Amino acid sequence: MNATTELKIFCPATIANISCGFDVLGVALESVGDEMLIRKVEQKGIRITKLTGQNLPTETHLNVAGVAGLALLADSNYEGGFEIEMYKKIKAGSGIGSSAASSTGAVWAMNELLGRPFSKTELVKFAMEGERLASGVAHADNVAPALFGGFTLVRSYDPLDIVPIPSPKQLWATVIHPQIEVRTSDSRKILKTNITLADGIKQWGNLGGLVAGLFTEDYSLIGRSLVDHIVEPIRSILIPGFDKVKSVSMDAGALGCGISGSGPSIFAFSKGEENALHVARAMKDVYRKIGIDYDVHVSKVNSTGVHKI
Amino acid sequence: MNATTELKIFCPATIANISCGFDVLGVALESVGDEMLIRKVEQKGIRITKLTGQNLPTETHLNVAGVAGLALLADSNYEGGFEIEMYKKIKAGSGIGSSAASSTGAVWAMNELLGRPFSKTELVKFAMEGERLASGVAHADNVAPALFGGFTLVRSYDPLDIVPIPSPKQLWATVIHPQIEVRTSDSRKILKTNITLADGIKQWGNLGGLVAGLFTEDYSLIGRSLVDHIVEPIRSILIPGFDKVKSVSMDAGALGCGISGSGPSIFAFSKGEENALHVARAMKDVYRKIGIDYDVHVSKVNSTGVHKI
Repeated sequence: MNATTELKIFCPATIANISCGFDVLGVALESVGDEMLIRKVEQKGIRITKLTGQNLPTETHLNVAGVAGLALLADSNYEGGFEIEMYKKIKAGSGIGSSAASSTGAVWAMNELLGRPFSKTELVKFAMEGERLASGVAHADNVAPALFGGFTLVRSYDPLDIVPIPSPKQLWATVIHPQIEVRTSDSRKILKTNITLADGIKQWGNLGGLVAGLFTEDYSLIGRSLVDHIVEPIRSILIPGFDKVKSVSMDAGALGCGISGSGPSIFAFSKGEENALHVARAMKDVYRKIGIDYDVHVSKVNSTGVHKI
Repeated sequence: MNATTELKIFCPATIANISCGFDVLGVALESVGDEMLIRKVEQKGIRITKLTGQNLPTETHLNVAGVAGLALLADSNYEGGFEIEMYKKIKAGSGIGSSAASSTGAVWAMNELLGRPFSKTELVKFAMEGERLASGVAHADNVAPALFGGFTLVRSYDPLDIVPIPSPKQLWATVIHPQIEVRTSDSRKILKTNITLADGIKQWGNLGGLVAGLFTEDYSLIGRSLVDHIVEPIRSILIPGFDKVKSVSMDAGALGCGISGSGPSIFAFSKGEENALHVARAMKDVYRKIGIDYDVHVSKVNSTGVHKI
């Protein structure tokens, strides 16, 4: 076995549905993520040969990495196959892109091992098949930042158009995962089909402000723009303690705070590590008092996406 | 009379409601606009002493520049007054910010003559009173680019938050004004109060792409993002020939094309002057064939806003 036949990789956790960027804006984290080993083998097809850290199916067609890999193979003229070892650290269902990390990691490494026949946008499409298995919908909002790193905007699905957005150097994320189950399908179901035009205008005004703030490293503008008048008021009902976590995070100096993905994780952005740690302490206090177990992650915003380790 | 008691200024025309940036994104033009002369006088109050080019009221409280000026005076401790001469070149009701040019010009010049006691955001608020007189609604989407220059995003009205966005160097606008009347109040009335969440997501995805494209001078991304699924399909019904103008503009090489303000003017953006002129010829052909008179403007995107001449 040499370096050209297997790759060990880091697959970042991601925050999608960033406040006003519902369904379009995501970001990758630097120090939270899975590890995977992808091995090029002669035997056709994809096999999950190892899976630790989470209780997830290892049958190829029931595993998001397997399904994403099969989508890539179907578009490739490669005659062999791949073995996948998954070392999960991101909890499934936590709302920080556990399935996207697996499916993105798989197709990124396979593309590397095959000599990069596919573009990044094509890889996003393959990985989206993993998302379809996980949630019933082929979303790109976790997959895109997991692959590109930094912030990514999914401008359009048809055709798929991913726009990388820069990450300000001192931007840190705090994510708290209360140990309750919120199914993606439930949190989709409670969304309303219609919104008011007035709320829509506020939302695209804030999204424009957020993108401008990311380009200009204007932390105050980023903070002012991290507002969601549409989805957060509805979905936050499913997350006990949300309002309290948000208010203590803002009091602790966060730039903004919202639901990560479809929850139940809650993210906050801060300027600098110290503020992010301060926010983490404030968030923990809330769930300690309520009596709900939690995980907390404090991470710089990542700028590289999935990468070799 | 010396330089400190009167100012002659250029007040740019502006395009508001730029496609996906409905109600939030506007841009100033470099070579289309009014001229004004503002004179500081001892006599209290505001007087419109001259008005050429358009048939508009000269009574202070019925003139947008007068009303905007009164709003500034009301917040100032200045004991004297101002005289205003208006040399209108932008037709009222054309959809390229005729009233905003007048009200913005007035308050900008007054602020200069008083030694800049007010911030730009405060000036926007005063000028918005002129917009309230003109259309019944105190909008900032023409006033902000007329004052700041370039593209501006009105991220929020409460509190008022204007975000300047850079203008790519080779971005040119073509604007055609068919000589038909579309009242702002009518074109507001036909808008729907509700939109689908799905359309909203497309809109803020495109707005994010447009802002990113303006920052990165990515003309292709700007073009791909100049899409409006919400307002254009409804309002364009009021503008005869709109669909044809749009299709010939795109065929002629425009990056994107949409309704300027609440119409009836139609704008297109192009990369470079030559393309913008080519688009102008294609647009003219449409209205010549239909038999509707028109004005056409071809202008670089302006980056300075209202300024001394």
